[in-house]
Order: sequence, then structure tokens, then C-alpha cells
Amino acid sequence: MGFKKIPVKGMCDITPSEMRLRQKLLSDIRSSYAKFGFEEIETPVMEHIENLTSKQGGENEKLIFKVMKRGAELERSKASGKELADCGMRYDLTVPLARFYANNGAKLLSPFKAMQIGCVWRADNPQKGRFRQFMQCDIDILGDGTNFAEIELITATADMLAHIFGEGGPKLTVHVNDRRILTAVALKAGFSAEDTASALISLDKLDKIGYGGVGEELVNKGFCKELAERYLGIYKNCADGITCAEFCASAGCGDKEVIDSLSEIIDCCSTAVGNKALITFDPSLVRGMGYYTGPIFEVTLEGFPFSVAGGGRYDEMIEKFSGVKTNAVGFSIGFERIVTVLKDLRGQEMKLTENGVAFIIEKGASVQKKMSVFAEAQALRAGGAVVTVQPMKKNLKFQIDELIANGYTDVRRIYAKEL
Amino acid sequence: MGFKKIPVKGMCDITPSEMRLRQKLLSDIRSSYAKFGFEEIETPVMEHIENLTSKQGGENEKLIFKVMKRGAELERSKASGKELADCGMRYDLTVPLARFYANNGAKLLSPFKAMQIGCVWRADNPQKGRFRQFMQCDIDILGDGTNFAEIELITATADMLAHIFGEGGPKLTVHVNDRRILTAVALKAGFSAEDTASALISLDKLDKIGYGGVGEELVNKGFCKELAERYLGIYKNCADGITCAEFCASAGCGDKEVIDSLSEIIDCCSTAVGNKALITFDPSLVRGMGYYTGPIFEVTLEGFPFSVAGGGRYDEMIEKFSGVKTNAVGFSIGFERIVTVLKDLRGQEMKLTENGVAFIIEKGASVQKKMSVFAEAQALRAGGAVVTVQPMKKNLKFQIDELIANGYTDVRRIYAKEL
Repeated sequence: MGFKKIPVKGMCDITPSEMRLRQKLLSDIRSSYAKFGFEEIETPVMEHIENLTSKQGGENEKLIFKVMKRGAELERSKASGKELADCGMRYDLTVPLARFYANNGAKLLSPFKAMQIGCVWRADNPQKGRFRQFMQCDIDILGDGTNFAEIELITATADMLAHIFGEGGPKLTVHVNDRRILTAVALKAGFSAEDTASALISLDKLDKIGYGGVGEELVNKGFCKELAERYLGIYKNCADGITCAEFCASAGCGDKEVIDSLSEIIDCCSTAVGNKALITFDPSLVRGMGYYTGPIFEVTLEGFPFSVAGGGRYDEMIEKFSGVKTNAVGFSIGFERIVTVLKDLRGQEMKLTENGVAFIIEKGASVQKKMSVFAEAQALRAGGAVVTVQPMKKNLKFQIDELIANGYTDVRRIYAKEL
Repeated sequence: MGFKKIPVKGMCDITPSEMRLRQKLLSDIRSSYAKFGFEEIETPVMEHIENLTSKQGGENEKLIFKVMKRGAELERSKASGKELADCGMRYDLTVPLARFYANNGAKLLSPFKAMQIGCVWRADNPQKGRFRQFMQCDIDILGDGTNFAEIELITATADMLAHIFGEGGPKLTVHVNDRRILTAVALKAGFSAEDTASALISLDKLDKIGYGGVGEELVNKGFCKELAERYLGIYKNCADGITCAEFCASAGCGDKEVIDSLSEIIDCCSTAVGNKALITFDPSLVRGMGYYTGPIFEVTLEGFPFSVAGGGRYDEMIEKFSGVKTNAVGFSIGFERIVTVLKDLRGQEMKLTENGVAFIIEKGASVQKKMSVFAEAQALRAGGAVVTVQPMKKNLKFQIDELIANGYTDVRRIYAKEL
């Protein structure tokens, strides 16, 4: 009949036991961020196609799900060979936030601490643990040019993650760096100003392909071998746990104001989060998105090969929407990855209830009997219990076992005749 | 620069104060339905275009936002003049549920009590209070052929709405009818079997255009005046509060089993919900969707001209996806309408906090001072307080007033030098 029962490619149905885990996690995230004064907002899942293809989204712009024009306008566009889409699904929560702030900023507290929880869509090739529809949770501070914004974001994220994984959970590390230091190092090594972005893109692959791979890539891009070696040498010789000031001194570059501010971020966050997380300077942290302008950060969990959160300062994006220069810093957590980690760590399913009551009524029971069952069920619910009422099945034993397995430990049988 | 700061047509940005109202409402709905054993599930926002254009969605199928194919497949489809979309945004939560159950039914409790909370999209002409992206909350019971499913759904919805509006809220009425009785009346009046659907579509407009209007429409459709009058006469002569049995007796039609079952639904629900809502037989309730096969219901609030929830039994839809006959009953609440009603009734805004703490730090404060502020902020948060830290502004008085107005009643100023 043409009906398809599996979801569209790369997207998932979420069954009750996973939903319970996700809802618990969302509620923990919301309450944890709320203590920092982050205020939740929501934007439509679709954005104007012009906003999504404005070069703010880097590689993600190639992955947009486009939404078609409708009716007469679609026909006109087809006839004239124009763009057939007027909207697209958002590929991140940052572009919508920039638009939101341009549209609503006047009504909001300043600085504005935003929280966004919502799905984003990317027409990527689906892989294990990577979907075409996935949830993101972002916090952003708009309108604060001081490093308090970075400190609040890092502290809030570390605090939230520590709370979620609980005591005995995997060790959290927040890696911190600054785009301006990365650029200064590339310049110091001898890259021209227009080549620093390219150098950073290669350096970003260090985790995956190592110094050998990055060096090779730089040479393949046409940079001379000596330059590549001089550049990577600066990073290779770093001791673990090197401070930002030490690194910049040994590299012989970096602006004092930038170094002091980054050190302050690390010191203040370390004091605030205590032993819940290690806040550390990471000289080779790059972060993919080109729109970052200052400090950048990323969170890793001991024993897991991916980061679970990342962010940074992007002081130039909102101006492109509003025309008004607006400081902005954001931290985005990878909700789906955290779900994966929690499933890995806990394994067990969350049940609907632990001590629910189920009434099962035999066919032919009188109206009076049914009325009293439904009234009793309501009275139990008013007392806080989870209660269900259902017809008695032929295989009564199976029915009762299944109910008990699902947490309805109190199963009450109502027969048509008194026994 | 081509950036647009307003959202796409018919969709809204949701600011913090409205988000707080919505989140509170969602959390009340979830906890209220959970007591009945409804389990939350989620499906992707996009469905295969074939599933959405399968004549299950009635008029809504004309309003689908279509999502374009991508890459080489798009080019091939353009060249060959084929459909350019492979997916569409869901226009309701019922079609996705039918697909979900066909895909996942084997893993679920039976009967399965589903809860879905999510947005749907319709490319309708935007009107006041009517949007192109809006939230729906549905509960459905799948796999229960008895009227316990209707009783549980109606009781759960009435209980939830009564809880949300609270004591002193507008009076709730649940209107109940049955498609089979509607059809029997049309046949009895003299419509042929193939014309009953058309008669029902006209009768559905009674609220809006009255008996005169419905009669005129029937005549315009080509039915004779006597038939229209005979048909409407059956409804016109009904006393308020007429029971299902009385109505069917006076109309001289209706199957005894159907009448008894509907009476049982009304009796059991009335006992269970007590004075929280009036459950009443409404002979002229039709409900738009053609897929209903049995009892139908709708909730109204005294003083508001629209229904806030509606549903019914649709025993034939899921089979179209799974090939397996599956009983199904659903109740959908109009989340956006309830938000509108709550705003109307309460008026006042929910604040972020009532007694938050704000630290405002003057430029030039020492690192030590900042470290101690951020540590103190964390200690206060650990104690449950909402705390924010921000830079001191030039207009300090305005800054403090704004913070206090937003519920940060304890504003602490940190100066660079001791005063």
C-alpha cells in the first residue's frame, strides 16, 4: 500500500525506556542551568534559507534539509528556474539564537543568559551514534564583553555534567584555549596572516592523525617542510599541564591581555568547580567553527574518545543579523553523546513505575463493578500511585507477568462474577 | 546583507517568560498523564512523503511542508520531472504514532498507553492564535478493543485539565458521541449509505452556521428540502442533557450495543472525575477527521468559544501501516490554545526567580576578588539559590533596578577597591 513503517533515513523512533532516560536528563540539565540564571527560549525549527546559507555554519551549510516553497510561488520558481526552497531546517542553535537576539534583544535582560534545548538537522551520512535529527542543549551569554561570561558558562557546564554523571562518574576535563593565541603562534612560526586559518584547520586534526599526519597535510597544502616543523615543534615540546603563560613565553608570542584573561578564566573556574572537574589550558585545542573570535573550550570524559561539549566566544556573528555589535559566548553540549555515555555506564532500564497498580477486568463485569474500579483507580492516583485499567486477556498468567515486569507490582483481578 | 531577523511566516520566537509558562504546563501534563501509566515516545519531525499523503490526514494533507531530496537524487528527479520531496513535516501526531506502533509494537506493553508531546507543522494561512508550527500533546491507547480505553483517556484528560486550571478555573465539559450513532441517524432520516459522510460534514458546521445554514448547505449539495428538514429535526428537538439512550429511542435508531457502551463510558467517567468535569452526551458532535470509527469526544471550557481537546476511536488506521488490525483510541489536547487560555486567566508573568542573588563586579577588581566571588556564587547555588555574576555597568542604578525587577532581589556590588 506504499506505507513505510521505518522512520526516514538517519532518524529514530524513541521508545519509552529511552524517553525516560532522556526526560530525566533534560530535567536535570534545565534545573542545573536555571541556578545560574539561564533563561530558556525557543525558536522555530525552520529558518529563512538566506540565514542558513550565509557562511556562518561552515561545513554544516552543505547538509541543510531544505523546505520547499508552496502553491503558486513554487510554480513560479520552477518556471523561472529560481531557488525552490524558502526555508531550511536549522543545523545548529547558534544561527537561530543570533536571529532571535536581533529580533527580541530589547525585551531581554542584559547581559542575556540564554538556554536552548532542541533538535537540529543535518543531512549527513548516518553512522553509529550519529543521526540526521539530534538534540542539542546550548547556553549562551549575550552582551557581556568581560571574561565573566566564559567563567559562568564553563562553571555551569562543568557543574551540570558533574551532577549528571554523579560521584564515581568519569573524570571531567575542560580544555581551554584562545583563538588569538593559536593565531599568534601560527604567525610566529612564519605563516602569513591569510594562511593562519589554514594552519589551524590542519592543527585541528592532531587528535586524529598525529604530528606526522598534520605535518604531511601542511606540506601537501604547499607550505615548506621547515615551516611545518617549526610550527608543530612549538606544540610538540609542551609539557603536560603547561600553563597558558608558560606556553606563550616558550613560544615567544601572545598578547599579555589575552594571556592574563585566559589565566583568570582558568583560575576562577577551578576555584568555583573545585574537584568536580579539571580546568586546563590546552594549547592545541582548535574547535572547527570559523566564527570563534576569542576563548574556546571543550569537555572530555575519561575513558571516552569524543568530546561531550564545546564552545567559545563569537563576538562578530550577531552583528550580521542586527547591525549592532554584540558580545557573545556559547557552550553547547552534545545531548545524544551524553545519552550514549549514560547508557554505557548504567545499562539498566528506567521503568515506568516501581510499584504501580493494575486493574484487569473480565469481560461481562457489570457497569456498577466497572464504575467502582474506575473510581478506585482515580482515588489511588490522587494519592500519587501509577494506576492502569485494562481488559482481562485469555492468557491471564502472561498478562500478569508482563504487568509485574513493567513495575505494576499490585495486579488486581476483577471477575465478572464473584468468585 | 540579506539576513532576516524575524522568524519565518506563521512561526514564533518564544521568549523566556512564555517559555516558563509552557515548561510548567508541560511538566504538569507529563506528571498528570504518567499517573495513568501513559509512556512518552517520540518520533522524528519528518515522515516519508508517502505516509503523509496517504489520505489519512484529510484536509491537513494539503498543508504539508515538503522537504526536498538532496544531491544527485534531487538532480535526477528534476531531470525526470518526478516528485522533488522525499519527506514532509508531520501535520499531526497520529500518523507518526501509527507508523511507530507498526515499527515498534512488539517491544511494547499491550495495551500500549502512549503519550506524545511535540510540534506539528501546517502551511495554513496564519491567523490570530493559529500558527504554522504548534505544539500538540496526544495520549493514545493501542490494542484495547473495550471501552476501558475511552474511559481511561477521557478520565486522564479531564483530570489533567482540571489540575491545570485549578479550583475556580473555567467549568470543563467533555462532549461525547459515537460515529456509528451519527451514521444511524443519517440513514434513518433517509440519506443513502454513500451520502452519510456528506451529511455529517454539513452537520459538523452546526456550531458555526446554525440549523438554517446547515439546511441550506444540504439543499445546495442537492439533497431535497424535506430530507434536510427531517434530518435536522431529529437534532433540533433534543432537550439539553438528553441521554444517549433517550436520544436514540426518540430518533428510532442506534444499535443497542453501541448505546450501552457509550452510556457506560459516560457513567464510568462521571463517577471517576466527580465534580471536576461534566461528561455529557452531545448528539450533534461530529469531529472533522474521517478516520474515526466509534466514540468521539471533545472538551470545552465555559467562557471560551473553542474546544481545547478532542479525540476518538480509529480502529482502522494502524492496519494500513502494519497489516495487523489494531484497536486505537486517542485524545489530543490543543497545547497552544491552553497556553492562550492560561495567559487570559492569569495575566501575570512568571519570573525567572523570586529571590535570586546577583553579583556585579567593577572593572579592575583583582583576580583574588573575582575568584572569591565565583566561589561564593557556586556555594549559594549549591544551596539552591539562583545566582548570576555580571560586570558593573556605567548606569549602575538602572542595572540594579533591572535585576531587582527580574527577581534578583539580593544585588551585591563588588568594587575594584575597598570602599
